[in-house]
Amino acid sequence: MNEQLPALSPASGVSGRIGGRAARRAARATALPDNLRPVRAGLEGGQYKPLSDGDVLKIHHAALNALDTIGLADAPASGIAYLTGAGAILGDDGRIRFPSALVEDALARANRSITLMSRDGRNDLDLSGTRVHYGTAGAAVHLVDVDGQHYRDCGVQDLHDAAKIVDVLDNVHFCQRPMVCRDIPDNMEMDYNSIFACVAGTTKHVGTSFTDPAFVAPAMEMLHMIAGGEDKWRERPFVSNSNCFVVPPMKFATESCLVMEECIKHGMPVLLLSAGMAGATAPSTVAGAIVQAVAECLAGLVYVTAVKPGHPVIFGTWPFGLDLRTGAMTGGSGEQALLTAGCAQMHNFYDLPGGAAAGIADSKLPDMQAGWETMCSNVMAGLSGCNMIYEAAGMHASLLGFCHESLILGDDVIGQALRCVRGIEVNDETLALDQIAQVCMGGPGHYLGTAGTLSRMQSDHCYPSYGNRMSPKEWVEKEKPDLLTTATARKHEILGTASAAALDPALDRAIRAKFNIHLRP
Amino acid sequence: MNEQLPALSPASGVSGRIGGRAARRAARATALPDNLRPVRAGLEGGQYKPLSDGDVLKIHHAALNALDTIGLADAPASGIAYLTGAGAILGDDGRIRFPSALVEDALARANRSITLMSRDGRNDLDLSGTRVHYGTAGAAVHLVDVDGQHYRDCGVQDLHDAAKIVDVLDNVHFCQRPMVCRDIPDNMEMDYNSIFACVAGTTKHVGTSFTDPAFVAPAMEMLHMIAGGEDKWRERPFVSNSNCFVVPPMKFATESCLVMEECIKHGMPVLLLSAGMAGATAPSTVAGAIVQAVAECLAGLVYVTAVKPGHPVIFGTWPFGLDLRTGAMTGGSGEQALLTAGCAQMHNFYDLPGGAAAGIADSKLPDMQAGWETMCSNVMAGLSGCNMIYEAAGMHASLLGFCHESLILGDDVIGQALRCVRGIEVNDETLALDQIAQVCMGGPGHYLGTAGTLSRMQSDHCYPSYGNRMSPKEWVEKEKPDLLTTATARKHEILGTASAAALDPALDRAIRAKFNIHLRP
Repeated sequence: MNEQLPALSPASGVSGRIGGRAARRAARATALPDNLRPVRAGLEGGQYKPLSDGDVLKIHHAALNALDTIGLADAPASGIAYLTGAGAILGDDGRIRFPSALVEDALARANRSITLMSRDGRNDLDLSGTRVHYGTAGAAVHLVDVDGQHYRDCGVQDLHDAAKIVDVLDNVHFCQRPMVCRDIPDNMEMDYNSIFACVAGTTKHVGTSFTDPAFVAPAMEMLHMIAGGEDKWRERPFVSNSNCFVVPPMKFATESCLVMEECIKHGMPVLLLSAGMAGATAPSTVAGAIVQAVAECLAGLVYVTAVKPGHPVIFGTWPFGLDLRTGAMTGGSGEQALLTAGCAQMHNFYDLPGGAAAGIADSKLPDMQAGWETMCSNVMAGLSGCNMIYEAAGMHASLLGFCHESLILGDDVIGQALRCVRGIEVNDETLALDQIAQVCMGGPGHYLGTAGTLSRMQSDHCYPSYGNRMSPKEWVEKEKPDLLTTATARKHEILGTASAAALDPALDRAIRAKFNIHLRP
Repeated sequence: MNEQLPALSPASGVSGRIGGRAARRAARATALPDNLRPVRAGLEGGQYKPLSDGDVLKIHHAALNALDTIGLADAPASGIAYLTGAGAILGDDGRIRFPSALVEDALARANRSITLMSRDGRNDLDLSGTRVHYGTAGAAVHLVDVDGQHYRDCGVQDLHDAAKIVDVLDNVHFCQRPMVCRDIPDNMEMDYNSIFACVAGTTKHVGTSFTDPAFVAPAMEMLHMIAGGEDKWRERPFVSNSNCFVVPPMKFATESCLVMEECIKHGMPVLLLSAGMAGATAPSTVAGAIVQAVAECLAGLVYVTAVKPGHPVIFGTWPFGLDLRTGAMTGGSGEQALLTAGCAQMHNFYDLPGGAAAGIADSKLPDMQAGWETMCSNVMAGLSGCNMIYEAAGMHASLLGFCHESLILGDDVIGQALRCVRGIEVNDETLALDQIAQVCMGGPGHYLGTAGTLSRMQSDHCYPSYGNRMSPKEWVEKEKPDLLTTATARKHEILGTASAAALDPALDRAIRAKFNIHLRP
């Protein structure tokens, strides 16, 4: 905190040379309980509606139409049995078509809200209504090294480090595995090691993928050990399956569907993830890409409902943008922000727990471009009331690179986005008419130090942890602190500290005795 | 454009290795007319409503109440005469109070829409409905030197350079003077030199301030010369007066009110600028700060209406945020974005041309923080349908510093924000049901190269000018292009080229013969 206050001369002509000693004293004296923190997981969005009510219905009907007339190809034999048993129709062309009544029935029977569990019960996520949560995700293949400004293959230690960092960031609410362990050649080992690296780093909810249905059971054995038994696991499943059950456009991903069936059997929540690229594997128009993603996820919902009605599912419409000049994926555009916000509005229309991707930077490093890209889609996703905002921090190069420093700075980005989601409280106290009268008529002529100001200086304001608000004068005096240097120092601090989320040593040893754990103890 | 396409493996599992040769050919062959550009000035916002309809009414009634019971102090004698003549009441305490009927009458008689003229007629701004425009503004006292990472006093050449840059940026629609000419000690000379430096750099609409009512007439003489006569000036006034007519809370700025009267007399549009700081000169709550700003601007509207009904006015509720821990101004927060978006919704409620501040960075340099700060409020201001978004590019250190490189990069930031404002078009073509059917059933299985994709690759997509979308591989091959280096190179390119906006040499000489012009020829 700067004791030497800057003399500001903004457009207003108002002097910023205003004391805040009482306010600073109050800041030091106060520690707010969690429910009074300025921002928190689960704030309600929905103030931003990119689609009119009529447009929402048009998208819904187009999706129903697509399911009825186009359907999806490539379901596995078991899926064909489940789906035709439920009332879907297998055509001569091998495509499964979904009568609208079947889809509407699945919608009616779906879970309206689900809770994604944390390992320790302290960060459970209530996916209902327009409640907003931000977290990591992805399958980056590079770790972005800020110091050397270079990209290298990422591995299990990098993944574990990311989880450790997520664990201590207030505004990153879950840890879907953001990186692939490229140092583990065996796919089964990679799958269960990815879970181990994440769960051993954070008690927050973890998301993961499986490359083969046969890899689910071994991972479950590990998760039962961690949970303290299968019953405990089924009571509070703290890991969900990020499942790319479709290969857009409108084809089931045969293997992933089998993974999904296996996860349902083991009581693991499923993220039904449809990741079309607008212009390549989905229509290039924002509306068209949303139609297809909604149709695909509705097909997934029918599938899950046929396997086990009410199984916890996240409606994962994740259309991505494409740079049509090059055919390369892009995630940092306004189009991406619209894709995600439009999808969130569809989740809200269906009143289903939903998720989409935001916060992706196309930029290769945590520079100004990364800042504007990651904020644009993150704040719009939050304002649109997206329950699960994936890829929200750390993602660079259109998902190819993950950066620990960006993850840390993402805590600030998401904090400000969440403050926007929290919105404007309007009531007699916040309208402040009495306060204006007191201050202006015979009062001090300013609001510094009024009870109305002091009582709200922490609960109303989301202060940045890393963002710098110094005056130029103080900034020079402090030798021009650099944002990335600050973030790197914080990274070393976090990674150099034993994690509160670490597994019990006996459990850790027991797991290592049964599994080929690549993460060094 | 990269010919070697990257192999992407995002969460989707979808390969990004997709050709776009046809698309690239189309890109090279096509040049879209202005009305088909992906983004442009005047796109309609309003999809984001931070306030419920009931909250809007509460704020309106609180503002009316404040005007009726608290009123404003410190009006000049002429203002007292105008206002009491119109029906306002001068109290024994020197405060002028406004009966609600008087305010409502002014609202009824106000201009519902105005056009801010450009000097050449090519960039006129239609301030009606929820049409959105972005531009510069402020009174920075420092120029931010990116190369040396330092702050120095700014001067008239820096201001002229900023105007020259604005002139060529597609997404910066007007040039309110962002910097103070600190190298001009005489205030009258500073005022008319600020106008000269801006107008000689850009044909876009210019905004400016006057420190003394006596300085308006000389500036008008210059503007008449530039316009080609007083009649031409009055027909198309291409400079507006940014007028801080209040010193919040609820006091008229006596001198500025006289400047306002003078500008009205000379046919210059007036920005009624109320720049309270939430927690210091305005209530700390977002709602309270909006109430006060609305009340102050309504008082200004009554004032202008009393002087000249229907004079073009911009309703300039510009509440700023404050870091209550230090008492220093802050503009990069979520609270700031809410203040601005909430104000824009009030402008829309009144159906008045309105403006507010967004895009401000607290960061000292164009780093990741600057990126997230400038995007957050810019995109929210646009989505809320703010007609005039001031301070939208270039502003650092909570308005103390202006940076040419950030102004240039701001063109990308605003471009993406505008793409979000443009929103999601939903119609039979964009829903793309036919296209989905064709591609999936017997078609190529992807949308690259479909007519639906190719025909929209330019009109639907806002491509960054400076933002980097290369794959990591290409980025390394191109020797890791640096964002700021790119922006600096662009700056030198712009400033090294003769401006199309430059004044006719004979006019330039004539002005220099009459006025002490500090800008070197």
